[in-house]
Amino acid sequence: MPKEIHLNAFDMNCVGHIQQGLWTHPRDQSTRYRELQYWTDYARRLEAGLFDGIFFADVVGVYDVLGASPDAAVNGAVQVPVNDPTLLIPAMAAVTQHLGFGVTANLTYEAPFLFARRMSTLDHLTGGRIGWNIVTGYLDSAARANGLSGQTAHDDRYDLADEYMALVYQLWEGSWEDGAVVRDRSRGIYADPTRVHKVHHKGLQYQLDAMHLSEPSPQRTPLLYQAGSSTRGSRFAATHAECVFLNGQSQAGVQQIVQGIRSQAVAQGRAAGDVKVFLGATIVTADTDAQAQEKFAEYERYASSESALVHAAASMGIDFAKYDIDEPIDTGKSQAIVSNVEAMTRSAGPQWTRRKLLEKMVLGSRQAPWVGSAQTIADTMITWSEQAGVDGFNLSRTVVPECFDDFISLVVPRLQERGAYKTAYAPGTLRRKLFRQDRLPASHPVAQYRVTPGQPSTG
Amino acid sequence: MPKEIHLNAFDMNCVGHIQQGLWTHPRDQSTRYRELQYWTDYARRLEAGLFDGIFFADVVGVYDVLGASPDAAVNGAVQVPVNDPTLLIPAMAAVTQHLGFGVTANLTYEAPFLFARRMSTLDHLTGGRIGWNIVTGYLDSAARANGLSGQTAHDDRYDLADEYMALVYQLWEGSWEDGAVVRDRSRGIYADPTRVHKVHHKGLQYQLDAMHLSEPSPQRTPLLYQAGSSTRGSRFAATHAECVFLNGQSQAGVQQIVQGIRSQAVAQGRAAGDVKVFLGATIVTADTDAQAQEKFAEYERYASSESALVHAAASMGIDFAKYDIDEPIDTGKSQAIVSNVEAMTRSAGPQWTRRKLLEKMVLGSRQAPWVGSAQTIADTMITWSEQAGVDGFNLSRTVVPECFDDFISLVVPRLQERGAYKTAYAPGTLRRKLFRQDRLPASHPVAQYRVTPGQPSTG
Repeated sequence: MPKEIHLNAFDMNCVGHIQQGLWTHPRDQSTRYRELQYWTDYARRLEAGLFDGIFFADVVGVYDVLGASPDAAVNGAVQVPVNDPTLLIPAMAAVTQHLGFGVTANLTYEAPFLFARRMSTLDHLTGGRIGWNIVTGYLDSAARANGLSGQTAHDDRYDLADEYMALVYQLWEGSWEDGAVVRDRSRGIYADPTRVHKVHHKGLQYQLDAMHLSEPSPQRTPLLYQAGSSTRGSRFAATHAECVFLNGQSQAGVQQIVQGIRSQAVAQGRAAGDVKVFLGATIVTADTDAQAQEKFAEYERYASSESALVHAAASMGIDFAKYDIDEPIDTGKSQAIVSNVEAMTRSAGPQWTRRKLLEKMVLGSRQAPWVGSAQTIADTMITWSEQAGVDGFNLSRTVVPECFDDFISLVVPRLQERGAYKTAYAPGTLRRKLFRQDRLPASHPVAQYRVTPGQPSTG
Repeated sequence: MPKEIHLNAFDMNCVGHIQQGLWTHPRDQSTRYRELQYWTDYARRLEAGLFDGIFFADVVGVYDVLGASPDAAVNGAVQVPVNDPTLLIPAMAAVTQHLGFGVTANLTYEAPFLFARRMSTLDHLTGGRIGWNIVTGYLDSAARANGLSGQTAHDDRYDLADEYMALVYQLWEGSWEDGAVVRDRSRGIYADPTRVHKVHHKGLQYQLDAMHLSEPSPQRTPLLYQAGSSTRGSRFAATHAECVFLNGQSQAGVQQIVQGIRSQAVAQGRAAGDVKVFLGATIVTADTDAQAQEKFAEYERYASSESALVHAAASMGIDFAKYDIDEPIDTGKSQAIVSNVEAMTRSAGPQWTRRKLLEKMVLGSRQAPWVGSAQTIADTMITWSEQAGVDGFNLSRTVVPECFDDFISLVVPRLQERGAYKTAYAPGTLRRKLFRQDRLPASHPVAQYRVTPGQPSTG
């Protein structure tokens, strides 16, 4: 029996996410991203398909590298306009019982005290179904939007991130003891102040002297996602992440990255199974392989390789517009830090040209889709799961919502027949569903910040 | 026929809001504040009662002035724990069509670029039903929680607030022209980049060089609430606010404040009717006056004057615990800036003692409730509306949700009979419902930041 495959929908509170241009398809509904009903229907659909969760990407800047202008991004809705993803979650949680929510938040620009409260609030309201995808950002445009003259150096951002994590861990796990909240109506005691503690932090970047404003939520610390795959990023992920999101072109390449993350986690005292790895994937499916190829060809007519290049230029930090169409592009100067970009950079030597890049774009993205019948797709997913050692997939959307309807009606039953997919949700929080416990294990660095009875009180 | 009365529920994402101690009442459900279902039921209830909105208070610190400790606040759940209020709104909006949402956010601690996007996201998702209660904060504990050694001086906070407003106005109204978004599928143009503009701001406190990430929302700028009534706070309110929230003990005193705000608004080129004033009120009602008094007495048994003192001490910045129970309290040193506190400070001379303060607390609050039959309450509300010149009321909760059930079943029909309350919602956005237009008028300072066609594009 193959191992269980976990699934997230991968989306963003915007029009064009990964597959650029498909919003122009007549049946695509992504321009409805401003409507609550669009998202509540979406949540119900995913829960009917037993998806583990929906994973929301986010950026807080615009893609203005190509041509040194945001115009092409604005024109093609390439992740702009983009609304706040966290505000979708309460409405989607209200119409579901089990669906998890991973949300990207850039710690460089989020004040830690208020951010920690927002995550705790979401964990309360969702009954413990919240995850946080930790990002440190890579866009100069985001830095300029948020009051800085430019972004800080890559490794410095991760040092700052380590301090940030130490701070929010203390708020989530080191302020209110388990059992501090008693809710005793007869004695008029809501919480025992001797069991609520101030966090005192004075670091290089942050200082704070306060108790956490939220009482303990089901998971306390949200399920932690991370997607960095640079040397420093991998170390950060191996230290903090419970779920790692990566992209890759070959099973061997992905397997190598997965093994590297797991062995780094083990080197830091964690178990190899403490980290689940999700691979980005795009799927086009239909009743037969031939019909799937037809559907793919029909979708492809609406895709935009030019818009895909806008995204790639920003991700890689290279203005391809500076090069003639057949001029070799110097990818060695790429400042890329995210895994899919690095994978492409490594495979793309100086022989790459703008023409070749455009030709490589499929369905408006650098990510080659899997196209086929349910049988073909199920085989592909199970093979990747086993050969590359990944635990699941983050499925980006093509023509939405029909891409999820297709997947759920066709592929999910086939995966279930093969024993590779659950037939019902496990009970409990998002972390319990994935790791059989509500809180992070003692081997995680959060443990050092946990509060123990008898510490000095706030008073 | 009396003028129309507008109504908001006044609440907070916490257990003890204004009436302290009532969470211990057997029928009170405020300890369910962590559950989405509690809030979605609440929203449906208010919309059934044709409430204009729900107004969410917030604090980002704890009440640690009394006894120089947060212990009493934690013990009695006096606005702590307190979760983020903005995250309730999407779920409540999803189950309603008309209910408005005013949410308090403290601009001192919210990064303007991301805050502006959050408000735009909420305005999109609610279909234009979002309002923002602008506060600058008054708690040292909040300053220390957010990385500062202490809060800035009162008037400086308002100067900072003026700069903040200029910045978010530019993001909301000066970045995307009306008509910039074309959503042309056939030509693959989502938005016209020549009609999307960067905001360039370099001020004393903030700098920013970016386009707004959100496309124009129904109201663009959220409906603006403000509650300051100090000299500087009133000037800020008269400049920016569309709705002012105040508290007061006497009709004459409130009338004077209302006239002052309106005349200041007029002096700044706005119309007197551009500002609607909401008075805080607490209501206990039943079939007869006698039964209402019985209910009040029954509620009072669960109220906590000690917890009310915790709140008052923090609001006034006076540690009453330093005084003996009958020792005169020097209220002249109050740093109070919010209206209800000032009103009390003005009426409370050096003759006040801790004992007298405790005796003055009713239903766990300094705000005396109105108690009576529907007829009595309707008379009181209409009289206040006419004599004090207020446009509506923010009703704080007592025993929730029955206090709203009582009000809606008993008082609303009586107000409707008197012609003082709508019998159906007007269509459109929150601003249209109150002011008959979706956007702020040209007389508001936002107008100077509006983008006009032909300005330089982002490129």
